[in-house]
Amino acid sequence: MNTDKIENNIRNIPDFPKKGIQFKDITTLLQNAEVFQEVIDQFTQYFEDKNIHKVVGIESRGFIFAAPLALRLNAGLVLVRKPGKLPSQTLNEEYALEYGSDAVEIHTDAINPGENILIIDDLLATGGTAKATGALVNKLKGNIIGYAFLMELMELKGRNVVNDPSIFSLITL
Amino acid sequence: MNTDKIENNIRNIPDFPKKGIQFKDITTLLQNAEVFQEVIDQFTQYFEDKNIHKVVGIESRGFIFAAPLALRLNAGLVLVRKPGKLPSQTLNEEYALEYGSDAVEIHTDAINPGENILIIDDLLATGGTAKATGALVNKLKGNIIGYAFLMELMELKGRNVVNDPSIFSLITL
Repeated sequence: MNTDKIENNIRNIPDFPKKGIQFKDITTLLQNAEVFQEVIDQFTQYFEDKNIHKVVGIESRGFIFAAPLALRLNAGLVLVRKPGKLPSQTLNEEYALEYGSDAVEIHTDAINPGENILIIDDLLATGGTAKATGALVNKLKGNIIGYAFLMELMELKGRNVVNDPSIFSLITL
Repeated sequence: MNTDKIENNIRNIPDFPKKGIQFKDITTLLQNAEVFQEVIDQFTQYFEDKNIHKVVGIESRGFIFAAPLALRLNAGLVLVRKPGKLPSQTLNEEYALEYGSDAVEIHTDAINPGENILIIDDLLATGGTAKATGALVNKLKGNIIGYAFLMELMELKGRNVVNDPSIFSLITL
């Protein structure tokens, strides 16, 4: 697996969005057609034999990986968004932030009971968004086959928060 | 071109996000693997012989179409986002709304001078966002080959605002 090339195309931005945070900028990776293709190839190889029915992308960078992967896996694409963005009937799930809380939503008709679901986002950090997304899928009786991330920040221990054995991260930082 | 099936999979939501607006909900289309594939196939067929170097997706629903299309065209993917979301050096372009204004940003290193650029979003409505995005690409000396939209709302005359002959809309409403 050629993950060095993937990692080398992610840019580190110090002190964004606030002082002390080392932001992992994936725009440099996306602009490189060959490397972006490699990322989607590797996700596809990992999940193509798992009979995924729907790929759930988390707003908004998750959409960038969820959309191509859904097409490659011949699966439907489901959007999980910030509150107020989805126009039809939704379920809402809150999660804690360092200060306060946030929430994500899913359309109630986005998943049929028993469908095999892959949840994807660019980054696994504290795990709050991913865990909340998993809760939404569970409420709709989807069968979570896996969680996929481009990057996982190990020191934040988001893996323990999501608490699911089926987490696949292309690169760990 | 089988656009009936595409149009039939877009859901109309009355009075969203506010009274009097008929919101065109594409989540029903995206959840249908076959129809989503058809959309990307049709965009690909239209642009595959046009030597596109970068596909510019407009936040956030534009990402859903820009990402797969960039991969199909073997082009890089560039993100145009709301202010404050892109972490490195950016250009900013304001555009007028019904009340007030908004803006979009692009990384200054996202496009090299002379690159062939395709701009894509889900919807051409008033054309403000698309026109501002075009202005950003022009400032970076990109060569705009075309604008692509899943849907175009004809009565809003966004086509005249963008004022570019190379607008391709899969369906017009």
